[in-house]
Parts: sequence; structure tokens; C-alpha cells
Amino acid sequence: MDSSLDVDRRSFLIGGAGAAAAVAVASPGGTALAQDAAPKVKAALPKYADWKDASALIVHSDKTLEMKREEFGNSLITPESKLYIRNNINPPDASVIANRDSWKVEFGGVKYPKSLTVAELKTLGVVTIATVLQCSGNGRKYFQDQVVSTNQKITGTPWTVGAAGCVVWTGVPLKSVVEALGGIADGAKFITGTGGETLPDGLDPLSLIVERSVPLDTLDNVILAWDVNGSPISLAHGGPLRMIVPGYSGVNNVKYIRALVFTPKQTEAKIQKTNYRMHPLDRKATSDDPAVWAMNVRSWITTPLTSAKSGALQITGLAFGGINALAKVEVSTDGGTTWKDASLSGPNLGRFAWRQFTFPAKLAAGAYKVVCRATDSEGKVQPKDTEINGGGYLHNGWQGPGIDLSVT
Amino acid sequence: MDSSLDVDRRSFLIGGAGAAAAVAVASPGGTALAQDAAPKVKAALPKYADWKDASALIVHSDKTLEMKREEFGNSLITPESKLYIRNNINPPDASVIANRDSWKVEFGGVKYPKSLTVAELKTLGVVTIATVLQCSGNGRKYFQDQVVSTNQKITGTPWTVGAAGCVVWTGVPLKSVVEALGGIADGAKFITGTGGETLPDGLDPLSLIVERSVPLDTLDNVILAWDVNGSPISLAHGGPLRMIVPGYSGVNNVKYIRALVFTPKQTEAKIQKTNYRMHPLDRKATSDDPAVWAMNVRSWITTPLTSAKSGALQITGLAFGGINALAKVEVSTDGGTTWKDASLSGPNLGRFAWRQFTFPAKLAAGAYKVVCRATDSEGKVQPKDTEINGGGYLHNGWQGPGIDLSVT
Repeated sequence: MDSSLDVDRRSFLIGGAGAAAAVAVASPGGTALAQDAAPKVKAALPKYADWKDASALIVHSDKTLEMKREEFGNSLITPESKLYIRNNINPPDASVIANRDSWKVEFGGVKYPKSLTVAELKTLGVVTIATVLQCSGNGRKYFQDQVVSTNQKITGTPWTVGAAGCVVWTGVPLKSVVEALGGIADGAKFITGTGGETLPDGLDPLSLIVERSVPLDTLDNVILAWDVNGSPISLAHGGPLRMIVPGYSGVNNVKYIRALVFTPKQTEAKIQKTNYRMHPLDRKATSDDPAVWAMNVRSWITTPLTSAKSGALQITGLAFGGINALAKVEVSTDGGTTWKDASLSGPNLGRFAWRQFTFPAKLAAGAYKVVCRATDSEGKVQPKDTEINGGGYLHNGWQGPGIDLSVT
Repeated sequence: MDSSLDVDRRSFLIGGAGAAAAVAVASPGGTALAQDAAPKVKAALPKYADWKDASALIVHSDKTLEMKREEFGNSLITPESKLYIRNNINPPDASVIANRDSWKVEFGGVKYPKSLTVAELKTLGVVTIATVLQCSGNGRKYFQDQVVSTNQKITGTPWTVGAAGCVVWTGVPLKSVVEALGGIADGAKFITGTGGETLPDGLDPLSLIVERSVPLDTLDNVILAWDVNGSPISLAHGGPLRMIVPGYSGVNNVKYIRALVFTPKQTEAKIQKTNYRMHPLDRKATSDDPAVWAMNVRSWITTPLTSAKSGALQITGLAFGGINALAKVEVSTDGGTTWKDASLSGPNLGRFAWRQFTFPAKLAAGAYKVVCRATDSEGKVQPKDTEINGGGYLHNGWQGPGIDLSVT
């Protein structure tokens, strides 16, 4: 993959008026650099997320909050109050959501480049879609477990399954915006979105800016969303406007989007060029490694998580196909030796949402390894273990999140 | 319809041990009789619902809380914090949700009558369904408006459109419970559910008890739900366990269900026998009038509600088929003279849920009457006005909730 950036694009991002203005505003008292390492002690909710349900969350750091596994319960839609957070740098000041409709996005790489406010975007179209929002590193702990006996190391937040939720976004289809702006410029191959975070002075903006490029073939699905679960998106989750790329992992869903450009090449921002790449454990990533984009098929059990009474019980869980629709889910109560189909037991919110499943079992007293595996609409099945990559991205093995169930 | 009750059923309900125990517990400081009339001044949230979002609600009385129309917004799922409340009598004491899994339901009219706890029910099956929960009287104000110029009167809470929500229930299919209890007894024609409210001493229990009978052909859809929107159902909405009859109006979805019996006849409880009947305005209801059961096709606009800027805009709203699936929605900006199809613009949560719709318009400055009308899967179309009935039930005319839009 070619990751060099055309000069025009580079100047638009870093030297342009919008970016300059953003850089000029000092971050109010926060450190801008993200530290992904999990502290060993339980921390309080960070200020920008202090309205969240603290009891539902594991605070790995002020930028990495995981939903506790037991909170999934029977949830079809994840409430914003429990939804995980993963920020790469500090969110912008809360003033950006004081007047949501006046937030501006600069559109480029179209026939008629233009800035549009949220109020203007709202006149162009409105749709509602459900998507699994999932951190690229969800399940990283299971990779770490796999290498713990060796001298190898996978750094990063040790998410188990809680860096994911299924939420409902409302916004304008990007396609409608493109139509209003005369269509896409020739040669565009990527949709490049720039986040509205405030960048600190004195550091190379490219090393910090949250700017992601996704392939142009996502265009039919991308929306620019102002509501989540029927309410205006919180600052913590990217309000006033977030680029939603259904089927793509969290980092591609750019928060506080302030620029969206159709580009011939991927951005040179570090978060795209060498971060979030699928690289081997024994070397650093390069821009030739595959980008972390589309999500893969995945599932996990939500109840029971530790123990159950002997006799009849219902094993329930969540499953999704990632970039594809979900086709089926199987459950095994003997650690993967034998499998039986589970029932999809809730509404189907569409290709990019997760689905609930139920599996009735009758278990005598004893110890069980309960695991589940999903298959997507293209026949891809979750592997027992996912091949390790250095960043610990896109885990989808069925063994890791298995349940050690004690039946008494 | 024959509303006389067989003797066994009557003794089960009123003379049985469960009912006697419930009656013996005094209602803690509350009046038990419902007064449906709306107070003229804005009241505070009642204690059992004090966790609700007060800013989202119109408090008609301590038993009738309506969601403000502007709160629908882009909501696919209605949060419990904003969902309307309509209680016929005071809820039971909050102690009933202290240990949810131990709540008992007495099952009768089956081969092996038995009490089952919620914990036991949870082992029998689990499904999740989305339903429109709507008060039988939602839209009553529009009936009242129709008769205001005459000497006629329709009493009851003057709901506009806010006595409705779309929520996601999780529970056990009633069919699975019936299978576990050996099947339905011969001669059963109704499912009769009894609520767990505490009845005051000294009054005829039949005049107060919340007990509803619905036709047996609902069996395939009925669930006994413990979760709403992924969380345990609040006391205000019927926790620890509620009978959900998809496609049937609110009153049929019995809260705090403590008995469920398959009966040959409808209950003689007043709430079934003469209340919630479709009767003419000029006489009282009798048990021969049709019961308020299945909901009908309906829609309303959610944005804009009063004014808009001239030029392009998106008109959005909600529509559902009631007992049937929704087929289509039309919008008119000239008060119903000309109609055009709207787009269904959100996920399809199934037959009993509502759907979001979007209608792009281009309006010059002026005054507009914006209305919408839905058609269900059987071809039933919303009428301009619903034929008046004395109780003001099941309004579904498209004219009433129309929007007087000022475009500037």
C-alpha cells in the first residue's frame, strides 16, 4: 500500500486554515499524549466522561474505559452511559458541543469543495443505522495471554470483550453530501476524515492528529452522525458530529469530524501510516502492512459468566459478522470438542449490528468450558485462536473469551 | 362477548391464597383508586418514577405521565427514562423488585398448574422482542377536540402522541412455559393475566384488580419479560415481571404479573368487563362492546414540529402497523390534498416495532399543514379521523396529530 500523501492534501490538513486555528487553541489543562498502558489500580471516571455509569466500567486509563462483561446482559442496544471509550488524544473542549448545529466540516476532493455546518447537513438527508462500535484492540488480552509464557510482548490496553457496543446512529448519508457537492473528484481512492481534537504546540501535528483514511468502497455505508441512540452524541463519543464507517473498527469512526476529503492516497498521519497496522510481532509496523479497517466475525457469551445451578439453563450471548452479516452461531459446552447451533433470539438490526443468541442446555454438576463461535454470511468462521499480530488488533478467536463454568 | 366468569376462575383470582395475601398488605400511604383526569398545573414526578427524566415528561397525574412530542427526535428505541406511564392503580411496594428472581407467578388452565419463580422461568427460554408500547387512550385529545363544539364529552387523560414508546423486552416465550406445564387445558379461549398491585380493603376487588384477558391466538407472541432495553424492568413499568402481548395496547401488557391462567371466558374484573371497551359516545360500555385489544396502524411526525427555514428540509417521523407490520408511509405538506411516499429510514425491528421515516421537502416561506399517514401489511390505511368512541380509545386519524408548520 502506498502511504505517501499528495502535497495538496498534506497542506490542507496541517497548513490549512482550519488546522491552524485548531492548533492555536491550547488544550485546557490536559495532556495531549495518549498512554495506552493500563494502570494497576482502579481509577475514577475522567471529567469528560463523568456522566457515565461508573459501576459498569473498568477504567484502564483516562482514555480507555471498558464495559464490564456482565453489563452486556440481554442488551440489544448498548446505552451510551455504559459504552466503552478509547481516545487516542484528549477530546476537544466541551465548547464544541455548546452549539452543535454550527459545527463546521470542510469537504474536499469533490467537485465543489465547501464547508457545511451540521444544520446544513441535516437538510441533505437523514438515516438511522445500527452498528457494532468496537475498538480495534478489543480482545487484546487474549493475544497477551498467548505470548505470556514467551519473552514476547504485546503492549496496549488489555481489553477482554468490553471494548465494544451496538449503538444506533442517526445522521446524513455521506453519499447525499457528495451529491450536493457535485460528486467525487477524479482519482480519489480513499475517504480521509480528520478529527477536531486540539493539538498541542511544539510537536509534529502528523504524529498526533487523529486522521484516518478508509477505502472509497465504504461510501455507500458511511454516515456523518449527530445522534446516538436517539440523543445528541456526547463529547466523549465524538459529538457534535462523528464519521461512522459501518463494519470498520472504532479508530476509523473519526470523532468531532472537522474535515472530510476524498483523497488519492492515505493520509500520512502516524495513526494511519504506521499505527493500526497488522504487523508481525518481531518487527515494527510499516505503511506496507495492512491497515486495521474492516472487522471480522466474532461472538461471546454474556450469561452465565461464572456459575450456574445444575439442570436446565439458557446460555446467551452476542455475535456479529463485522463487515459482513452474521449467518450463524454455535455453542460448545466441552471446550470446542462438540458444537451445536444456537438460536438467534432477538431482532435483526441489519448487517452491521450484533445479534443476540440463546442456547438451551442441561448440565449436571461439574466444571465446563463453554465457548461459542460465529460464522459470517461469506462462510468465514471464528478460528480457535487468531494469528498473533504485534499491535494486538482484531482478535476473534473463540478460545480466549470462553467461560469456565462451575455448575453446582 | 360473554363476560361471565367461571366459578373456579373467580375463586382463584379473588379468594385464592395469593390474592388474599396481596390484599392483606396495606398500600403504603397511597390512594389506590385511579383518577384519570389531568390536573391543570404541572406536577412533580411521583415517587415511584422519580428517577425519570422530568424534562422529557408531561405529568398529567401521578399515574399518567406523557412523553413530550419533541423527545421522540430520532429515537428508534425509547429509553425507559422517557417512556410514558399509565397506571390504573398504585404500583405495589418497591419491595417486589428487591429480589426479582424470587417473584412467583401462578400458572393455571394448564395440564400441570404450578407456581414458577422468575429464576425458574429464566431456565425455560429467552427471547428479545421489540414492541410499540402504547396506551389505549393515546391520541384521546384529538377525539376531545372533535366533540368540543358539541355538548358531548370524552373524559380521560388528554394524551396527544406521547403515550407511546418502542422498547425492547427480554423474557421467556409463554409458549415455552406452557410446554413445560404439559400444555393448555381443554376449552381455554383466553390468556388471563393478573397484576400484583396491592388492593385496598373494604372495596370489591373486582372493581380494582388489574386483570386482563386476551384471545388465545396471541399465544405465539406473548412473552413474560424481566428486562426492558437490556436492563431489569423498573417498578414503574411492571418489574419484576410483565406480560407482553405484542401488538396489543398498553393495558393488556399486565405489570407485576402474579397469575396467568388459560380461561374459557374473559375475567369479570371491571377493567375488562366494562372498562376498555369500544362503545358509542351516547351510552355506557357493556361487556358486549368490543374489548380494547389490538392496536391499529398509526404514524406521527417527530421533526419539525413548529417551524423551519425555507429551502430544503427533512421531515421525519415514526410509524407502526399495530397488530400488523408496517407497509408504507405517505406525507402531505398541504393538509392531505396531495400525498407522496416517505422513505423508511431506519432498522426494521420486526412486526410489532415502529419504524422511522424520512421525507425530503423543499418549502418556500409560508404556512403548511404537514400530515402523514401509514398503511399496514394488510392494506389498512389511517383514516383522516377515527370514528369517535366513548372511552376515547385507539385513535389513529392522521388529521389530529398534523403539524402546523411555519416556514420562514
